[in-house]
Amino acid sequence: MPLEALVFDAYGTLFDVHSVIARCEARWPGHGAALSHLWRAKQLEYSWLRSLMGRYVDFETITADALRFACQSLDLACDAADTRTLMEAYRNLETFPEVTEVMSALQGRKRAILSNGSSDMLNAVVRSSGLDATLDAVLSVDALKIYKPDPRVYQLAVDALAVDRERIGFVSSNCWDACGAKSFGFRVFWINRAGNPVDALGAVPDQILTKLSDMLPLLS
Amino acid sequence: MPLEALVFDAYGTLFDVHSVIARCEARWPGHGAALSHLWRAKQLEYSWLRSLMGRYVDFETITADALRFACQSLDLACDAADTRTLMEAYRNLETFPEVTEVMSALQGRKRAILSNGSSDMLNAVVRSSGLDATLDAVLSVDALKIYKPDPRVYQLAVDALAVDRERIGFVSSNCWDACGAKSFGFRVFWINRAGNPVDALGAVPDQILTKLSDMLPLLS
Repeated sequence: MPLEALVFDAYGTLFDVHSVIARCEARWPGHGAALSHLWRAKQLEYSWLRSLMGRYVDFETITADALRFACQSLDLACDAADTRTLMEAYRNLETFPEVTEVMSALQGRKRAILSNGSSDMLNAVVRSSGLDATLDAVLSVDALKIYKPDPRVYQLAVDALAVDRERIGFVSSNCWDACGAKSFGFRVFWINRAGNPVDALGAVPDQILTKLSDMLPLLS
Repeated sequence: MPLEALVFDAYGTLFDVHSVIARCEARWPGHGAALSHLWRAKQLEYSWLRSLMGRYVDFETITADALRFACQSLDLACDAADTRTLMEAYRNLETFPEVTEVMSALQGRKRAILSNGSSDMLNAVVRSSGLDATLDAVLSVDALKIYKPDPRVYQLAVDALAVDRERIGFVSSNCWDACGAKSFGFRVFWINRAGNPVDALGAVPDQILTKLSDMLPLLS
């Protein structure tokens, strides 16, 4: 069945978060990798836990909370200015090199972002990266106040694009997000840049690829 | 308000999982700590993700899945016999040294376990540790098919013990579990053995202690 729309995860999938890691290393030399790793892990953990607890706050808040936890845990000083600088980096991420080619090749189909990010964060990074011209929609979980992989999040894309789930291709570099989207009923491309094992979540991605452009020959 | 009942998390709170870590190190020398850490992280991650996805499988399955993922990720061989041996260790955990004293001191109040563990796993470890004589109830999320910190899990204890939530003291060594229980409305003791920072989840434990027996003078 041909895909009418492609829906992309944002952070780590279209946008390279490498610059955030570089800023962590610049601010806390020797601790950039450990801090970035713990920060990301806590950011996701808080999104899942708050969803289960019914205690939603937006992704900007979760991201700042996770940074503070990670710094405290690693005994690194982190003041309000540090938090502001690092959060600002999230608004100015670069896209992965193949994104322009992929977006062009997809012309004629609907293209959207579906992300945990707050609308404010997402709109800023979409504008600063120049991606806005190529997207039909930028969808944030903030409309629902629950995070991925709750199936209601994936339904947002079906409703906003007015395309059936079987005709939507979903693209994410996060395996758990890819599994969540597959469980919902999308056709799913997991961009496994790091060569990780597949997660055991009861639904597996349709395709496991190493970069975004690898999906182009598979679309029909 | 006096507490009529004390409800305990199981793994890491009453039962010391140290022996599982020791078995990992014995089987994969030099990798025990890294493997145990990733195994535990994935076990929790799968419990939260499957809850959000509506793809519940029991904790025994999640635990075995997480072990396989962790071994694959660290490039360690893991066959069915390894999985069986390590899962068996979960059924024969020892309690922390202060558990006997604490349970005795709580005589006259209702005492229960409320755990992510499957009934089968829980009943085995409760029996093998000799804790069964001191407990009024051993409650598993398996009855609901959703994991902590979904508030319906904490409601299980209210229903089973027939005690109002404000009169239940909840005890966990997992900060996220303590926050989830506080968000639900229990009076909460977080046993912070590792000296971790408190998580930012919108609800904080009432008391942060370093061992179980520290809560005894606080009960009234």
